[in-house]
Amino acid sequence: MQLARVIGTLVASNKDPGLAGQTLLVLRNLAADGSEAGGGVVAVDSVGAGTDEVVLYATGSSARQTTATRDRPCDAVVMAIVDSWDLEGDVVYRKTDAEGPWAS
Amino acid sequence: MQLARVIGTLVASNKDPGLAGQTLLVLRNLAADGSEAGGGVVAVDSVGAGTDEVVLYATGSSARQTTATRDRPCDAVVMAIVDSWDLEGDVVYRKTDAEGPWAS
Amino acid sequence: MQLARVIGTLVASNKDPGLAGQTLLVLRNLAADGSEAGGGVVAVDSVGAGTDEVVLYATGSSARQTTATRDRPCDAVVMAIVDSWDLEGDVVYRKTDAEGPWAS
Amino acid sequence: MQLARVIGTLVASNKDPGLAGQTLLVLRNLAADGSEAGGGVVAVDSVGAGTDEVVLYATGSSARQTTATRDRPCDAVVMAIVDSWDLEGDVVYRKTDAEGPWAS
Amino acid sequence: MQLARVIGTLVASNKDPGLAGQTLLVLRNLAADGSEAGGGVVAVDSVGAGTDEVVLYATGSSARQTTATRDRPCDAVVMAIVDSWDLEGDVVYRKTDAEGPWAS
Repeated sequence: MQLARVIGTLVASNKDPGLAGQTLLVLRNLAADGSEAGGGVVAVDSVGAGTDEVVLYATGSSARQTTATRDRPCDAVVMAIVDSWDLEGDVVYRKTDAEGPWAS
Repeated sequence: MQLARVIGTLVASNKDPGLAGQTLLVLRNLAADGSEAGGGVVAVDSVGAGTDEVVLYATGSSARQTTATRDRPCDAVVMAIVDSWDLEGDVVYRKTDAEGPWAS
Repeated sequence: MQLARVIGTLVASNKDPGLAGQTLLVLRNLAADGSEAGGGVVAVDSVGAGTDEVVLYATGSSARQTTATRDRPCDAVVMAIVDSWDLEGDVVYRKTDAEGPWAS
Repeated sequence: MQLARVIGTLVASNKDPGLAGQTLLVLRNLAADGSEAGGGVVAVDSVGAGTDEVVLYATGSSARQTTATRDRPCDAVVMAIVDSWDLEGDVVYRKTDAEGPWAS
Repeated sequence: MQLARVIGTLVASNKDPGLAGQTLLVLRNLAADGSEAGGGVVAVDSVGAGTDEVVLYATGSSARQTTATRDRPCDAVVMAIVDSWDLEGDVVYRKTDAEGPWAS
């Protein structure tokens, strides 16, 4: 799975029927130190994530292993909202602190 | 899924029978800010997308989860035409505006 | 799928039984403008492609969706020989012209 | 599979039910010579790996082939703790030596 | 599939039961001209490859299509030992010559 921040939402009315009713989120990848990394994806939301939240997403066939995405033409799914992570014992990100390079 | 713009079409008469009758689109990847990103793919069209339209495509086994592509040797499918997306609350692209760096 | 040119063939007598009798082609990726892009793969041929021909190949589990490759340890298959493609309405490549940067 | 070092752990209370009870590890990729390579992933732990341990992880649908991860929206799993490896006959890493560029 | 040279072996006693008894090889990628390319993987051996041999490996779900790897948490398998390949009609590598940039 990859760390990412939700940076936007996307609307598409003309789409495969399998994606009807799904929320599509625009994600920017984060490196392990919390900084923004290159690249990103558009992913289906399975956990009710909002803009600016830090999430985990899964890709490939694994992205179809949630109730929201099973058998859908979806290759990326947000399947967790991150509370916190640490590196070498130091907390890098904690959701309630709203800390990190993306805080505003 | 990845954002892309349809930049061309491809014809191949000698191909696997599973691809008979499919429309093959040449796509250029777009970054989240709407600019052209490196790379792209050739994808089967499942939604009637035309040249210059901004679309979403799915890859891998997920590309075989549409009626057009099930059980076909297809690893990329256009499964949505994008109406709009926003970043941090600002609209980056809206189809009816024909705005953005790719407008002509 | 990716555009590529067939640049060689490969022989391997000691291989998984599932690959017995398959033709293995060495491919170089092409960008959408027809120029050579970085990288490439070795792919099973399912359409009778020859050296210098421009082809499409599929990867991942989709590479096992042809008669030649079903249930084989094969992650790349040539599944179409390209006749032509255009970008923004201009023909970039047409097979019978033998035009393009790879022509000899 | 890829070589990596466990550099942290991640907590996510709001996640897909399929990931309940799983340990999520933050990994940094290692090159074959034992140096840190770019990139990394967040992976489910299936072998009880701890911080600073050198591990192997598998990605894609193969990441769902352990008891811990079957049918889960998980695209990366730590499925081995590395004892040692050699290159051209020379030992590059041996766990009990705690040698290598990451030793502290 | 990708070309690679076997550069080492890896030992892991604490691993998923599905990998018991498998030989794990450290591979370095080769470009089509036989030179060493960036990156590599750790792969399960299904053909009895030894150090310094030039091989083909398959990744993703295709890596589970050999007898040695079926249903295992394995995302890369060596499934052929390369005898030779040519580019544009010229032999680039022939096993019995022990020629090429990796010869010793």
